[in-house]
Amino acid sequence: MVTQDDIRAAAARIAPHIRRTPVIRLSAEDTGLGFPLTLKLEQLQVTGSFKPRGAFNRMLSASVPPAGVIAASGGNHGIAVAHAARILGVKAEIFVPEITSEAKRARIAETGATLMVGGAAYDQARRASEARAAETGALIVHAYDQAEVLAGQGTVGLEFEEDAPDLTHLVVAAGGGGLYGGIASWYQERVDMIVAEPDECPTLLAAGLAGQPVDVPSGGIAADSLGARRVGALPFEVLSSVGGRLVVVKDDMIRTAQRWLWDRLRVVAEPGGATAFAVVLGGGWTPPEAAEVGVLVCGANCDPASILG
Amino acid sequence: MVTQDDIRAAAARIAPHIRRTPVIRLSAEDTGLGFPLTLKLEQLQVTGSFKPRGAFNRMLSASVPPAGVIAASGGNHGIAVAHAARILGVKAEIFVPEITSEAKRARIAETGATLMVGGAAYDQARRASEARAAETGALIVHAYDQAEVLAGQGTVGLEFEEDAPDLTHLVVAAGGGGLYGGIASWYQERVDMIVAEPDECPTLLAAGLAGQPVDVPSGGIAADSLGARRVGALPFEVLSSVGGRLVVVKDDMIRTAQRWLWDRLRVVAEPGGATAFAVVLGGGWTPPEAAEVGVLVCGANCDPASILG
Repeated sequence: MVTQDDIRAAAARIAPHIRRTPVIRLSAEDTGLGFPLTLKLEQLQVTGSFKPRGAFNRMLSASVPPAGVIAASGGNHGIAVAHAARILGVKAEIFVPEITSEAKRARIAETGATLMVGGAAYDQARRASEARAAETGALIVHAYDQAEVLAGQGTVGLEFEEDAPDLTHLVVAAGGGGLYGGIASWYQERVDMIVAEPDECPTLLAAGLAGQPVDVPSGGIAADSLGARRVGALPFEVLSSVGGRLVVVKDDMIRTAQRWLWDRLRVVAEPGGATAFAVVLGGGWTPPEAAEVGVLVCGANCDPASILG
Repeated sequence: MVTQDDIRAAAARIAPHIRRTPVIRLSAEDTGLGFPLTLKLEQLQVTGSFKPRGAFNRMLSASVPPAGVIAASGGNHGIAVAHAARILGVKAEIFVPEITSEAKRARIAETGATLMVGGAAYDQARRASEARAAETGALIVHAYDQAEVLAGQGTVGLEFEEDAPDLTHLVVAAGGGGLYGGIASWYQERVDMIVAEPDECPTLLAAGLAGQPVDVPSGGIAADSLGARRVGALPFEVLSSVGGRLVVVKDDMIRTAQRWLWDRLRVVAEPGGATAFAVVLGGGWTPPEAAEVGVLVCGANCDPASILG
């Protein structure tokens, strides 16, 4: 399992390359929800999502072979690995599925990484990337199922606790579970975690019902960031150990949350980035009296015009 | 003149209605400019610009008559006054010129304020609003030339200094000068101020050359936030006393700055909101060795699609 010490070490390792993303507190008057919220604006991170935390930590923890690094991704992890490879001066091959948006593909290609597009969804890209890595000997940087990646994502929790020490509840989106797994590894039992997932990418719901990670169909508007085929083994182990309340949210509510974040806060978030907030806004989970609720906004790799759609 | 104590009192007065907007530090590697920057993201303020700070302070410092409040504005001040009037339960009439965008008009109308559109630019709206106030007895909330408004905007400086105490230089946009005037009233000589204005709204350039506020033509892409007819008498007095380096920036550079803020930081800023950053990005001013530069992003009341244009 990933420990607090692992996460502290990750924070020190990645600090030169990562932004300390800010938090903003909205009063109960301001949210209009009857309770205040503290948002961590992780979509302002380098590359537009939390993903470089894990990518840098993995790449700085290993010795990268001459063949460089390889990753499969719906988009955000690929952008992060490609960016980290450019900064660290190593080669990168990034495999994305056909659902990955033009905006995300372009950002990967801009870095100079080799972009391979193929397969209907993330899982096909993952298999292709693993076959390729077996040929070349490149270092695999997994999107969510490696301890170094979890430790990197856990630095979001470290920062959130330092900057908002009074939180009692924390709402985080999950796909493969790397972000949730890292943050829960940091907090352990010190906050109640609420895990948000789109009902069209129900990896945790399915795993919870089956008692283990199982394949699910993934689709809907957040599929290019939360559309893993199944939750990772490591994140599922964290979930089973630390716990967390799962709340499933519909695509319509995610769209409404994107719109609210722009109209009321001038924050642009992609669907996966707005999924945690959608749970709170839509009432899928209602905090108890006097709760101090934190919400993570975790990505903005979308066309800004799309949030009004 | 507005004192630090006035600004502290304003901060306490407006606190229930205002967001503490965050700062984010970008390393030299991250900016690509050869030096780091600390941005205060004031575009995340309630109503999408810094303006409610001054509006609330003015309205909470006075006794509002039954006729309510009246304001003239290119847009952002009008949105802020209309919002404050709704929160405080008083009537509002807002006068805007024809250049005010549909997005800004809609936000004013949404609050329930009475919206009056007329005249080519801000100055005509201002004259119409003053004539109307003389009829009704409404309280005028000026966009920049009242001590309470300056003290309210000065709370941006108070927060910026608390959250980034090591700044040596601070870059701020100016139109009528209320934001600059408030912030300079807070800092006095503790930072070097760089005042950014679009070359198509050169109120400070003209005032500096004339030795007093004089009328200028106002146009260009930032006219609906920085397009005052002339700098305010109070802000000009602060500028003359505290000093500050004026840097004029072209519309093209403002567009480039908007694009950079989105591409690299996932921040949407309207033209006036990106004008201070445009000075730094475009090299219109180069900080000295080891400077710690703060930049204020001050508004985002635009169509998010427009930043890619």
